[in-house]
Amino acid sequence: MQEQTCLTSDLETAVDVAAIKTYLMALQESICDALEQEEPEARFHEDAWVYQQGGGGRSRVLENGLVLEKAGVNFSHVKGVALPASATAQRPHLVGCPFEALGVSLVIHPRNPHMPTTHANLRLFVAYPSNKKPIWWFGGGMDLTPYYPYEADVIAWHQVCYDICAPFSADIYAEFKDECDRYFYLPHRQETRGVGGLFFDDLNRWSFARCFEFVQAVGGGFLRAYLPIVKLRRDLAFTEAERIFQCYRRGRYVEFNLVYDRGTIFGLQSGGRTESILMSLPPQVSWKYNFLPQEASREAKL
Amino acid sequence: MQEQTCLTSDLETAVDVAAIKTYLMALQESICDALEQEEPEARFHEDAWVYQQGGGGRSRVLENGLVLEKAGVNFSHVKGVALPASATAQRPHLVGCPFEALGVSLVIHPRNPHMPTTHANLRLFVAYPSNKKPIWWFGGGMDLTPYYPYEADVIAWHQVCYDICAPFSADIYAEFKDECDRYFYLPHRQETRGVGGLFFDDLNRWSFARCFEFVQAVGGGFLRAYLPIVKLRRDLAFTEAERIFQCYRRGRYVEFNLVYDRGTIFGLQSGGRTESILMSLPPQVSWKYNFLPQEASREAKL
Repeated sequence: MQEQTCLTSDLETAVDVAAIKTYLMALQESICDALEQEEPEARFHEDAWVYQQGGGGRSRVLENGLVLEKAGVNFSHVKGVALPASATAQRPHLVGCPFEALGVSLVIHPRNPHMPTTHANLRLFVAYPSNKKPIWWFGGGMDLTPYYPYEADVIAWHQVCYDICAPFSADIYAEFKDECDRYFYLPHRQETRGVGGLFFDDLNRWSFARCFEFVQAVGGGFLRAYLPIVKLRRDLAFTEAERIFQCYRRGRYVEFNLVYDRGTIFGLQSGGRTESILMSLPPQVSWKYNFLPQEASREAKL
Repeated sequence: MQEQTCLTSDLETAVDVAAIKTYLMALQESICDALEQEEPEARFHEDAWVYQQGGGGRSRVLENGLVLEKAGVNFSHVKGVALPASATAQRPHLVGCPFEALGVSLVIHPRNPHMPTTHANLRLFVAYPSNKKPIWWFGGGMDLTPYYPYEADVIAWHQVCYDICAPFSADIYAEFKDECDRYFYLPHRQETRGVGGLFFDDLNRWSFARCFEFVQAVGGGFLRAYLPIVKLRRDLAFTEAERIFQCYRRGRYVEFNLVYDRGTIFGLQSGGRTESILMSLPPQVSWKYNFLPQEASREAKL
């Protein structure tokens, strides 16, 4: 292990940035491979980019597929001279420190309205206060946004989330599920974005190694949760009206990401690569004024 | 004139809220009427709504027209117990005062990609500090967002803007044009939203009556500037590729309105009527990753 990536944290475990990087890049690879297995037509295209202050990323985007209308799986590892306030609400004393941040972030917008949109993200922040030990924390999660929800899918999705958490502590599924519901919420609509999943931030309650194990559990669990739903719903017939409803509901996704999502706003305002940040936005979206679904319809149920 | 709507400002002219209200409601009416003349199929539908703290609005939206794919022309007059900080960057001492705000705001998204999108807004704020004279200021403007710009249209649009301003002062066209270019700017894209027009805020440099005359000049000028462009471009043939480019470029409109527009963000965060605030969003939008137009094409020119 190299000196600059192997340091002792306040919890007395090695902060092994290189190991996280290796893991995250392999995770990006394996998720893209698995998604391509589900997609008969389109393939991921890769763009490497450089961050102005140091580091960069590897964006992979698949567009216009038969099954996957748009899927983006991004890896990035950026280094900065001064941690911005928006990156650490809970640690104001670290603002201005040199830092590095690395992560994988993905959003999948399927074509079939019976397949849910999904988002997942895993990241590590390390801040380097002068003359002190580095401070690290993980963040991430995975969440699901159906247009035509199937109760069985929602239960299975949350079962995987539960199974990911169970080996680590009896309580964290409930805790991270609640955080997810609180975070993916549109106050101006009084709606959650989707049916939730897991969301965690500022994760350093265990040793670095144990937190990394949790991150790996989420990373491994993601495909185990999402792929069965893809396989079940990808070939269902859908109507033009269902497609229109899907495009309308995608507007909520845009509203959340552009108005509330801390990652998106931080990225845009800190000079990140716009096309990589906004790869999360859906391919086709519509806004209709004051849309009211028919009473007792599946749209109303949502 | 009623006592509560006729007060003396620090510039010694009557603050005649009732007169502004009458004018703005008539302006909403006349703009809707004129737009319907251009639209063979769809008609405006009206929703009246009530604001929680006092007052309310009259939203008028036309959707799915042959010429006008979506047009919203909203009037609102809201009263609040405490002026929010976001409403008055330049007058921090007024934050927390009782206030009222009234205005007309409109956005027109035409179907034909050769017709530009347009936005206009006229508003009056009055703050009522305790034991002091009310403080008032006007704001507003009009701006144009072409997808396939015609130089003649842009020149004619700015000529009307110039003519609106000329009787008031030799310099304000340049001043309000610059403000417009600065305001409708997407830093993350390093792009302006459209080709500009006029933008003014905190307008109280003349007497209340004179400022009101300026607001009326903008209100009257809007149709004089926009309708000729509608008539010139509404029947031009367009290709599927041009339509796709229009939907792609509309994404910039969404990005601006949801990430930067002070009115939209203030509205969403202060509990305004979401459907009226977001009527500005385009009906059909697409995001494509890293779109690069063909060299020397009309898309590249934009």
